[in-house]
Amino acid sequence: MNDNPVFSLEEYLGRLAKTRESMYRRGIEVLLVTDPSNMNYLTGYDGWSFYVHQGLLVLMDREEPVWFGRMQDSNGAKLTTWLSDESVRGYEDHYVQSNLRHPMEFVVKLLKEYGADKRRLGVESDNYYFTGKCLQTLTANLPGVEILDANLVVNWERLIKSPAEIAYMRQAARIVEKAMATAMETIDVGVREGVAAGEVLKTQLSGTDEFTGDYAAIMPIMPSGRRTSTAHLSWVDRRYEKGDLVLLELAGNVRRYHAPLSRTLFIGTPPSELLDVAKGVIDGLNRVLDFIKPGVTGEEVEAQWRRSIAGTKVVKESRIGYAFGLSYPPDWGERTLSLRPGDKNVLVPGVSVHVMPGVWLDEFGFECSEPIVVTERGCECLVNYPRKLAIK
Amino acid sequence: MNDNPVFSLEEYLGRLAKTRESMYRRGIEVLLVTDPSNMNYLTGYDGWSFYVHQGLLVLMDREEPVWFGRMQDSNGAKLTTWLSDESVRGYEDHYVQSNLRHPMEFVVKLLKEYGADKRRLGVESDNYYFTGKCLQTLTANLPGVEILDANLVVNWERLIKSPAEIAYMRQAARIVEKAMATAMETIDVGVREGVAAGEVLKTQLSGTDEFTGDYAAIMPIMPSGRRTSTAHLSWVDRRYEKGDLVLLELAGNVRRYHAPLSRTLFIGTPPSELLDVAKGVIDGLNRVLDFIKPGVTGEEVEAQWRRSIAGTKVVKESRIGYAFGLSYPPDWGERTLSLRPGDKNVLVPGVSVHVMPGVWLDEFGFECSEPIVVTERGCECLVNYPRKLAIK
Repeated sequence: MNDNPVFSLEEYLGRLAKTRESMYRRGIEVLLVTDPSNMNYLTGYDGWSFYVHQGLLVLMDREEPVWFGRMQDSNGAKLTTWLSDESVRGYEDHYVQSNLRHPMEFVVKLLKEYGADKRRLGVESDNYYFTGKCLQTLTANLPGVEILDANLVVNWERLIKSPAEIAYMRQAARIVEKAMATAMETIDVGVREGVAAGEVLKTQLSGTDEFTGDYAAIMPIMPSGRRTSTAHLSWVDRRYEKGDLVLLELAGNVRRYHAPLSRTLFIGTPPSELLDVAKGVIDGLNRVLDFIKPGVTGEEVEAQWRRSIAGTKVVKESRIGYAFGLSYPPDWGERTLSLRPGDKNVLVPGVSVHVMPGVWLDEFGFECSEPIVVTERGCECLVNYPRKLAIK
Repeated sequence: MNDNPVFSLEEYLGRLAKTRESMYRRGIEVLLVTDPSNMNYLTGYDGWSFYVHQGLLVLMDREEPVWFGRMQDSNGAKLTTWLSDESVRGYEDHYVQSNLRHPMEFVVKLLKEYGADKRRLGVESDNYYFTGKCLQTLTANLPGVEILDANLVVNWERLIKSPAEIAYMRQAARIVEKAMATAMETIDVGVREGVAAGEVLKTQLSGTDEFTGDYAAIMPIMPSGRRTSTAHLSWVDRRYEKGDLVLLELAGNVRRYHAPLSRTLFIGTPPSELLDVAKGVIDGLNRVLDFIKPGVTGEEVEAQWRRSIAGTKVVKESRIGYAFGLSYPPDWGERTLSLRPGDKNVLVPGVSVHVMPGVWLDEFGFECSEPIVVTERGCECLVNYPRKLAIK
């Protein structure tokens, strides 16, 4: 029994009803949910237990989804979800990381028990937590059963955020503002990169006077110098020097809801090439933020960016943003909408996007981003932080 | 080009030679490595880019493995690995999280280019970063090719640590000693749990005067009160109270090498039931540590534990330890050797095990663990921290 639910029972039941509608439209009779973010979305389940196989079974004729996972995590499911105890099914430890048994064999047992082992089964085929072996084990143990691709079915439902979800994202935004300010204050000539990273994490987790922070789904991305020429490096064992460029991609997190933010810092007098790129990116970002409103598509937003950077020194081949929200490691993106050519998804109020036109050139990079929520007339920038190259 | 390699080129080449021997024994002609820990082990690759598909192709007739990943991460591969630039192959952004294209189609292109698209392909079938869709895409695009299960092939090679690896683990041990002490000092009546978590993270990352800490593969597990009845909960938005029990499972990390450690803290006068369980677990742990030496098997170690707790109030159904070392989220375990019934693996010098007899009962839990390395005559406890229930 969960004595401190993150959302009202009504909100969880509404999400579940939408999931069943999606299942129905796709001919899925049982949905196997293994993405920890989707497990949390539907039931509230929260725990760092996703390194072993776990999931939910959503049946059409059983109101509560069935949680399954390792026995020692069962009490965690009872404490963090709205499910009743009989919907929490722990498996024995001999299924864990064994070459004799696979947890999907336990899932097959459950399907039999619930009379669902002949039904069309949907699986989140490209999720981190649904391996090739999961698919093979289910296929081998469910002969004649049609296994359907249900990848991102729940993720797509998460695209439009409820007011309660947006409230947590606004709290997360307060935290990332503090974390970014901490980084900017701490990073200086002679300071060790790990010390700066430690101060950032301390700020992310201790939160504000009003609320505690949770861990973000990605550790601080904060490369320096030449390491800024690529997108996903963190700190190393060195001291900052004069002339260092530092990228900072951080997030605040409250109740697993993120507010990601990127900024860039230069220690010393920045070279003109960097200033040119920074101006190009920030002007482009500003024009994109002005452009976003209900009715435009992901690819139209990207096209606006492309028009904005025409004639500047900015080179950018990758997408300039993606849906974000509730998430667990390794990604705070939702893997649904992207701001890029070919994305025909229409923005509507409540859609949250990390507008992230990061640029990584051969010798250096530049990042300045904004997490936004689409509103009735345009968009709300969740974060209030100066949109410029910081110079120290 | 990597100007700061974590290990000597000789060490990487030795690992690669062992990998090819394993491949040869299994009839694998091309190995697709997608576990980020294994990618790091073979090439040094380091980056939080595992949220998109990436990997290595290890061929028999090409000395260097081929790194593939997202284009924007290519510079990261050039900066952190010993590979030459022509072995780093970035894919275009339209492969990223797309429902039109899958990165495994890019892998098939690479296999064709290297003349390896008809060869027996080994895949890490049950790894987080090898999804059902990866398997389906490879199967569909490589007709007639035998796809073999190469799960944990590289992980098993990692079981015995080199002196250079153990040196990093000893550094990580210094960090986790500091982090545990920080937690014990910080946690007290009225302190917010997130504040304590923040201080722990700050200590983990800032490291010692001599070296910086890296992020651990698991965020601090630090439940309080009733939440200690399960294994993998972290902090929540509340203040510690008198009578709180707090579990602490933390790790130090240096160059991706871990030293995990668990301890338990009680605020106030602990109930006798907790004292009984604590005594049972610590006595059992001590006897297990005395027992471990080269030649004993995983199951023999567990049997020694089971004899030790006979007649006490300790109830423990799950494994009491597992191999650990180099790792990325979501797990610092290596998913190979476990201390449990049926594990016939023989301990030899250099094997590193987190001896972790955590107990989670209906109402509360207790944890006290030690990370060890098997030596010529017994084992070395990497960490020096009082093995007792802490009382405040």
